[in-house]
Amino acid sequence: MNDIRQLALTCRDAARAVARLPTDAKNAMLRDMADQLLADAPAILEANAADMDAAREKGIGEAMLDRLRLDDARLAGVADALREVAALPDPVGMVTRRDTRPNGIAVERVRTPLGVVAMIYEARPNVTADAAALCLKAGNGVILRGGSEALRSNMAIAASLGKALERAGVPAAAVTIVEDLRRETMVALLQLTDIVDLAIPRGGEGLIRFVAEHARVPVIKHYKGVCHLYVDASADLDLALGLLVDGKVSRPSACNALETLLVHSDVAAQFLPRAAQALRAHGVELRGDEATRGLVADVVPATEADYDAEYLDLVIAVRVVGSLDEAIAHIRRHGSDHTEVIAARDPAAATAFVDALRSAVVMVNASSRFSDGGELGLGAEIGISTTRLHAYGPMGLEALTVERFVVRGEGQTRNLHR
Amino acid sequence: MNDIRQLALTCRDAARAVARLPTDAKNAMLRDMADQLLADAPAILEANAADMDAAREKGIGEAMLDRLRLDDARLAGVADALREVAALPDPVGMVTRRDTRPNGIAVERVRTPLGVVAMIYEARPNVTADAAALCLKAGNGVILRGGSEALRSNMAIAASLGKALERAGVPAAAVTIVEDLRRETMVALLQLTDIVDLAIPRGGEGLIRFVAEHARVPVIKHYKGVCHLYVDASADLDLALGLLVDGKVSRPSACNALETLLVHSDVAAQFLPRAAQALRAHGVELRGDEATRGLVADVVPATEADYDAEYLDLVIAVRVVGSLDEAIAHIRRHGSDHTEVIAARDPAAATAFVDALRSAVVMVNASSRFSDGGELGLGAEIGISTTRLHAYGPMGLEALTVERFVVRGEGQTRNLHR
Repeated sequence: MNDIRQLALTCRDAARAVARLPTDAKNAMLRDMADQLLADAPAILEANAADMDAAREKGIGEAMLDRLRLDDARLAGVADALREVAALPDPVGMVTRRDTRPNGIAVERVRTPLGVVAMIYEARPNVTADAAALCLKAGNGVILRGGSEALRSNMAIAASLGKALERAGVPAAAVTIVEDLRRETMVALLQLTDIVDLAIPRGGEGLIRFVAEHARVPVIKHYKGVCHLYVDASADLDLALGLLVDGKVSRPSACNALETLLVHSDVAAQFLPRAAQALRAHGVELRGDEATRGLVADVVPATEADYDAEYLDLVIAVRVVGSLDEAIAHIRRHGSDHTEVIAARDPAAATAFVDALRSAVVMVNASSRFSDGGELGLGAEIGISTTRLHAYGPMGLEALTVERFVVRGEGQTRNLHR
Repeated sequence: MNDIRQLALTCRDAARAVARLPTDAKNAMLRDMADQLLADAPAILEANAADMDAAREKGIGEAMLDRLRLDDARLAGVADALREVAALPDPVGMVTRRDTRPNGIAVERVRTPLGVVAMIYEARPNVTADAAALCLKAGNGVILRGGSEALRSNMAIAASLGKALERAGVPAAAVTIVEDLRRETMVALLQLTDIVDLAIPRGGEGLIRFVAEHARVPVIKHYKGVCHLYVDASADLDLALGLLVDGKVSRPSACNALETLLVHSDVAAQFLPRAAQALRAHGVELRGDEATRGLVADVVPATEADYDAEYLDLVIAVRVVGSLDEAIAHIRRHGSDHTEVIAARDPAAATAFVDALRSAVVMVNASSRFSDGGELGLGAEIGISTTRLHAYGPMGLEALTVERFVVRGEGQTRNLHR
């Protein structure tokens, strides 16, 4: 336990050096990291091959093996991502507001790094470089606690990044890999309230709940994305069909994929048979309520659990609703505060939907798949928050900073004078 | 435990009605609350008198009795505060950024209420109305868990506010007082992660640590304010003296009062005797290092504990430092991330101080006593955060909201088309 504290303290000291780097130096460092990663490709791929062998021996499934796998193309993608972060605007030092008070003091709100961010994640080694790049660009240190399957890969990546850190005059500990993967060590890390400023868990719901349960440091997280498409009575049905197919089929394993379709009863008879045909052409299974099953053949009856489910698969729950209000009530009961979409031509219906729901992302006539940091203009994404605090929805660089106050005066006092 | 869950659920439902109120209706409701509080003055003062009697019987000290006491003047102050909140700009619905993406989708960041805020506080019944007003204005419900000494006063205030809530069409449960003051009930409240969006503890460090330890909902807090004034070698010493006296003497019990004075050795011989004379004229006790005691007679020797202390009293710790860097190192070791002040004419020294420290508020040539929501232009303050997340420093209405994404398109899809 003392070891993890010492590790975190060393990262915090290094983070101060990151915080002091000017923008140009940070960007040059990130580009240098990209070059270094490619130069170290043989060592990284060798470490990854060892991880893959061990994972296969443990009988780990194909899906996880694929997440774990690195190759030249994927490593090039990781390097590109580092260069993209270098090209993003630097949030640190950004003055978001300026105000001169009646007494003449000038008050500025200035973005400042959080300090030390702990990332808790599972098998994907590309997260190691991505998260490090975002945390560093925002002036932070990062403690990376990944899955045991990826430890060799993660250490090889961090060793490579560390060379570029040191060339920039920053201790390599600014990117710290936790090698001791015991659960109690993770819990100790999550309780270092005087050192760690934020923990971001990414992975399955089990991991995230474990982190939320044991952390004493602030945690930003999302458990799941039960995203809805509501097709209003006023919808352009061709447009709605496009949103439906893109939302469900283009990447079913993503948290911004659609899981539930709600259709207004006025257009259900017109829309649902077409929707079923289009979805089934992509291999999607439909589970529906009675009204849906009256309109479409061979729909599996949906249970209440179906409406709570994040399938992450080619399955969709369907319900016919009598009104916009009924759709809103359904989403309130079953939603996960992630992303909801309305297809509607009627602006009043769209506004009512936007106003009534307080999910992190609410879309009008656009695909749920845009609920992503890159697509929404944040540049890159460190995670998605459904915690209604600090950041809500996709989190970019700004979410890795906080605004402090800088005040300049000419000797103003509040009550007393000398 | 089920009772507190039910209470919180009822508050959450009421909060939805608050969130839907247009700005004008919220402001009218807050002004109506001010009128209602004054109309209910007899009942509120009677309840307060009963609280005062019980507190005296329990042998509670004068300082706490004074915090507990309400009278006509104080109640008028509370009513005024409600009217001031009514006059503040409404953060809810504010569009902070707009961006049209290359594919044509329009992305807005829109301020939205947090939902349900739990305030945990001690004996001051004015907090009940102040916190309720700020939470309501930001579109939230509030659960108020005050101290047992003030329960009758708090209930009378909430009953009065509830009348105005109901006249505005909002269930009175939008302002919910917890009457069951057992610690285990507070713990249960702090673990309602699916209902309570934020807990704000205000009070002594013991209460705040208890909340931080037991909460599973997000907590924003500050433990203490160990605020520093550093008098640089370049300082205007008259100006520095003004900041020192105002910071230490004008309200020693405030968290933004100065607790430590650091003086550059180049000006210590000139400054410290004058400083000691001015402070002692106001009854301040000085505790200093050896160098200070060499320059000023009868200074109590300071221990390391003195430099960590939040005295909240007419006592100040003093140290002579050899350089700006030494001052920064001292503040890093002993500071509480609350408020630090530099008195300096040299802009390079001021900038170095501002850049090196990441306290919530850093001041150049201005009194630490301005570290307050009202003084910094936030209008009013629900608390102060030294948690480097969501809000950092004084928290106003905006800190009771979060930005969500609202996206409008014309059928754009990310990958697939129908």
